[in-house]
Amino acid sequence: MSQFWSPIVHTLTPYVAGEQPKQGGLIKLNTNESPYGPSPLAIAAIKEASDDALRLYPDPTGLALRQAIAASHGLDAEEIFVGNGSDEVLAHTFQALLNHERDLLFPDITYSFYPTYCRLYGIGFRTVPLDDAMRVRIEDYGPDCGAIILPNPNAPTGIALPLADIEALVLAHPQKVVVIDEAYVDFGAESAVSLIRSCPNLLVVQTFSKSRGLAGLRVGFAMGQRHLIEALERVKDSFNSYPLDRLAQAGALASWQDQEWFTRHRDMLIASRERLSLSLQQLGFTILPSSANFVFARHTDRKGAELLQALRDRGVLVRRFGSERIEDFLRISIGTDEECDRLLDALHQILN
Amino acid sequence: MSQFWSPIVHTLTPYVAGEQPKQGGLIKLNTNESPYGPSPLAIAAIKEASDDALRLYPDPTGLALRQAIAASHGLDAEEIFVGNGSDEVLAHTFQALLNHERDLLFPDITYSFYPTYCRLYGIGFRTVPLDDAMRVRIEDYGPDCGAIILPNPNAPTGIALPLADIEALVLAHPQKVVVIDEAYVDFGAESAVSLIRSCPNLLVVQTFSKSRGLAGLRVGFAMGQRHLIEALERVKDSFNSYPLDRLAQAGALASWQDQEWFTRHRDMLIASRERLSLSLQQLGFTILPSSANFVFARHTDRKGAELLQALRDRGVLVRRFGSERIEDFLRISIGTDEECDRLLDALHQILN
Repeated sequence: MSQFWSPIVHTLTPYVAGEQPKQGGLIKLNTNESPYGPSPLAIAAIKEASDDALRLYPDPTGLALRQAIAASHGLDAEEIFVGNGSDEVLAHTFQALLNHERDLLFPDITYSFYPTYCRLYGIGFRTVPLDDAMRVRIEDYGPDCGAIILPNPNAPTGIALPLADIEALVLAHPQKVVVIDEAYVDFGAESAVSLIRSCPNLLVVQTFSKSRGLAGLRVGFAMGQRHLIEALERVKDSFNSYPLDRLAQAGALASWQDQEWFTRHRDMLIASRERLSLSLQQLGFTILPSSANFVFARHTDRKGAELLQALRDRGVLVRRFGSERIEDFLRISIGTDEECDRLLDALHQILN
Repeated sequence: MSQFWSPIVHTLTPYVAGEQPKQGGLIKLNTNESPYGPSPLAIAAIKEASDDALRLYPDPTGLALRQAIAASHGLDAEEIFVGNGSDEVLAHTFQALLNHERDLLFPDITYSFYPTYCRLYGIGFRTVPLDDAMRVRIEDYGPDCGAIILPNPNAPTGIALPLADIEALVLAHPQKVVVIDEAYVDFGAESAVSLIRSCPNLLVVQTFSKSRGLAGLRVGFAMGQRHLIEALERVKDSFNSYPLDRLAQAGALASWQDQEWFTRHRDMLIASRERLSLSLQQLGFTILPSSANFVFARHTDRKGAELLQALRDRGVLVRRFGSERIEDFLRISIGTDEECDRLLDALHQILN
């Protein structure tokens, strides 16, 4: 029946997201969601927007939300682009800004959606190996490329680059777009947003799914100078005029405005991460230095696949990636302290 | 600065949606929204889903919603694809199923997003002229094509094809995908969904934005045999794992289940359409026979552009399209009877 498919469909290798289990009772530390609910102000705003006005199309550009984000960063609303999760924003970015004659560069170990986007849009790419300590080395990103995309902190390693490194990378490629994917930046890395004013080639992508506790609402955004945002708008307006529904716009706006909630829960999560990291080290794990809401951990003498299954048998979901260099690592999302304790209890049973 | 753009961005001609005015007090008959709010059950379901669970990703496949839609049509959930409005569903359809060596065919006067999608994905297309009565003639869709897409009823004409014509078209092209875009089908046309079991080349696309009164929630869906749906899933999973947020899934499911609300408001709208059509004819308009929630109307001796502006000056928004053959037509969405009366009052002033 594939005679009916457009030829490209045969070439795709769809991204496989972490499991979203249907049954309850599991400790879910596998998809980097926030262990806390979103700001109560976001929930209230959504309920208030749940009325007969849902019969009307939403604002196609999400102006109020863009204005709020822009104001926080000293940017103009025209320098903000919003979309249906940062995955959609990234998809448009790949199509609008990263498809050039020369290859796109990104790390060999990184967000595994990147090569999937490349195949969807026919973008040539090369991966750049992390160093022996699993770090991005910006000097390895040479001039022979069409564009660059890097998460900071990187995923699934959790390791952040200092802002000076990001700045050096962006300045070293003034004729090429450099995208910094900051899905996890709030948990300990420094945002590159401060460089936007001086760097016409820099696009910064963030999300409400992690540090804002709104993975279920699907809101992400990009920040950059006007000409980069315009390219995203042109693709978006050739794809879907209204990507953010009324409830998502209302909820994200209220969430963005609740800075107190954001700071408090981010700090709680970082404290839990440091505590969990210490306990895992005591159990014989090596932990990469994480600036994210997860840790990437390898046990000294137990296989990753074995631990993944043993944890699942005890009702704890974590994530493992198949590629050879990281096959013995587990990516463990930071839960509440109680969830972290359940994980540690399970590991005690497994390892003793 | 366009050195930074992917080359394709220069070639795009983004779709221009109808105006979404920021100021209140206007009679908004320009974007075919429902004049009624959505089912109260949908609003209740959204409010109930507005809780801490928003921290978790939504079901990536929208299974509960797909099951409900499938059950209504005697289909399997695997034969339903859901997306962020039927615009997103159509975008994936163009990329996944309509990009072939030979041209895609669609009417010369139709949903103006179609050529935009073609440019986004590099799809060759030819348009097929409507006949003198502005009708689609299926015998004009010959074998020299790669695929076909047709709205039924067509937009902006509102004219529906009988199911027998749709069936003849689908059977005449057994080796090619035929997409029937049924955004407006509930207002008087017959759905092609009953043909799916016997037609492996048929995809039917519908939306919650019109007859369900949920334009602000962004939910659309496609129905077809498994191999067609699989192509859409492969593209979707290469683009955005989670296109429908938790609230959209909850609201659409409750809306779908409220058949009583749906039937009652659809019938109200059809009655208003017939009443408005009669009044417009008495004012000197020619009305195409509409099976949609709008009428496409041309005044005997007044220019479309002039009437559009005169109505806007009186606080009534309708829509007009620039292409030559239809430049004197106004597309008027059916509002409440009160809104229709406001339109008629304004036209009385303008025409007398």
